[in-house]
Amino acid sequence: MHIVITGGAGFLGQRLLARLLERGELDGQAIRRLTLIDQVEPQVPTATDVEIVPLAMDITAPRALDALLAERPTVIYHLAAVVSSAAEGDLDLGMRVNFDATRALLEGCRHHALAETRLIMASSVAAYGGDLPDILDDMTALQPQNSYGTQKAMCELLINDYGRRGLVDGRVLRLPTITIRPGRPNAAASSFASSILREPLNGEEATCPVPTDLALFVMSPGRVIEALIHGAEVPRTDWAPFRAFMLPGITVTVAEMLEALGEVAGEEAVSRVRHEPDEAITAIVSNWPARFDTAKARRLGFEGDRNLREIIEAFIRERS
Amino acid sequence: MHIVITGGAGFLGQRLLARLLERGELDGQAIRRLTLIDQVEPQVPTATDVEIVPLAMDITAPRALDALLAERPTVIYHLAAVVSSAAEGDLDLGMRVNFDATRALLEGCRHHALAETRLIMASSVAAYGGDLPDILDDMTALQPQNSYGTQKAMCELLINDYGRRGLVDGRVLRLPTITIRPGRPNAAASSFASSILREPLNGEEATCPVPTDLALFVMSPGRVIEALIHGAEVPRTDWAPFRAFMLPGITVTVAEMLEALGEVAGEEAVSRVRHEPDEAITAIVSNWPARFDTAKARRLGFEGDRNLREIIEAFIRERS
Repeated sequence: MHIVITGGAGFLGQRLLARLLERGELDGQAIRRLTLIDQVEPQVPTATDVEIVPLAMDITAPRALDALLAERPTVIYHLAAVVSSAAEGDLDLGMRVNFDATRALLEGCRHHALAETRLIMASSVAAYGGDLPDILDDMTALQPQNSYGTQKAMCELLINDYGRRGLVDGRVLRLPTITIRPGRPNAAASSFASSILREPLNGEEATCPVPTDLALFVMSPGRVIEALIHGAEVPRTDWAPFRAFMLPGITVTVAEMLEALGEVAGEEAVSRVRHEPDEAITAIVSNWPARFDTAKARRLGFEGDRNLREIIEAFIRERS
Repeated sequence: MHIVITGGAGFLGQRLLARLLERGELDGQAIRRLTLIDQVEPQVPTATDVEIVPLAMDITAPRALDALLAERPTVIYHLAAVVSSAAEGDLDLGMRVNFDATRALLEGCRHHALAETRLIMASSVAAYGGDLPDILDDMTALQPQNSYGTQKAMCELLINDYGRRGLVDGRVLRLPTITIRPGRPNAAASSFASSILREPLNGEEATCPVPTDLALFVMSPGRVIEALIHGAEVPRTDWAPFRAFMLPGITVTVAEMLEALGEVAGEEAVSRVRHEPDEAITAIVSNWPARFDTAKARRLGFEGDRNLREIIEAFIRERS
């Protein structure tokens, strides 16, 4: 089996690579080859039985993926994307990378008659917006209020249609807010969702810009990776009639996150979080939906985290 | 005021032209110029105070609309589309006409800084699909099960995003099934929805391929045209947060349609309808949603037909 990962240098791409190598198989087939694509050549391990090919490539260039698709990969994880702030700042860049490159990938699969190839794209909670109900479900409209979410929603529709027409085995997973991300705080509005746990666990100070009663819909990196794996193993027919849905995150308030931090790492850790309300960040994130009935994902066997404690303990375990 | 109508040779384009000329104004401004675009040069009346320009043009050609957009039209009615059977039969054609041409129109408006231009697109009930609830509302997901609906749903998202970014005043109206269409029966699965009324009213025989308890969500041509007019007159801010919604059709069963036919035109007219069940057509149309809570459209002042009798009587009046 040959697996391709776009966005292979990213946080999820690198974790997915590690997990696939650890497993050695996907859906009962041995993994013989892994191709990782990104703007810069992805880092890959050397000593392994699997042929790992890192490629530096601009996937927005005409027919960029043509040679690769001619080799008829079994599974394509399409994780490459311009993040939400960049897509909002540059409409052309977002359309080119997030939408046109996905469309080109679908057309490439069609051109090479890859009807059986599983094309798995990561979508986002950012695709939701507008006058949302208190609890969202699988039939809640996508009315995005940002260009990133718009582009992802358009890709969902197109992947669904190519899947429905039998041109490719298209599959889309909408990801909850991921916590605890590794790394440093960044400019993303959601940065605090990892930062208020990660920094105190690393003995550093963190800033919480939102009220503690704010609720979020979250999933740990480990569960996201397991969902991407499972997404390749669920039978094709189970994805119809619409081949995109929300993964089963868990709903947590900031207060619950800090409480769980205290339980695992003590009150000293909690005291490292400074509360500095930021109206701009609060305005953005309080519009994000926090409560979902993810019936379809659960029916298809996708699993969420059990609780925050598990998320924090997994972070500590993986860090060491 | 300069108004552009794409699909100007079509049934709706021609009726919209006639109604605009009859009114002489839109949103309180005198109509000075009307440009009608279609693949073939649209028919236009000659004797009038308004400058009417019919243009034969392929709107999928690169920068096809550039010269026209440079003239800074006030309102653009974007009605041009490949119909659902053609879009299903030819994916490339549907993507080019239904999606790429709409995107090019949006980009043209952006390029010419037409931030105030009202761009009004007709979308369709065909954008709905999947595991629908009994009664749909403004937050019901678009999970289209055909390429036409997919392309329209993608356009909705893009028009909403360009509108949200202030690049154009984007507005989308989802049309119910239109009855009574003029003309002859055609290959469309929905053809019967007009045919079982139109042909008997014209003293001809008609075939009803579906069970009489089948429900449809319908709107008369006259009400659709009034909705397109009103769509240009509703204040821009009222369209946020999502600039697309369903128009207030009425829910009617085939039995109710035949009953109203009898009331207006007598039992002899009803006897001209032959019941010849067609499983293929029934399978398609029984998946179409028939019950909507169109709260947003009603809040914005869009009006539906009062009843079937009114629809039939309007057809008879307009025919004569």
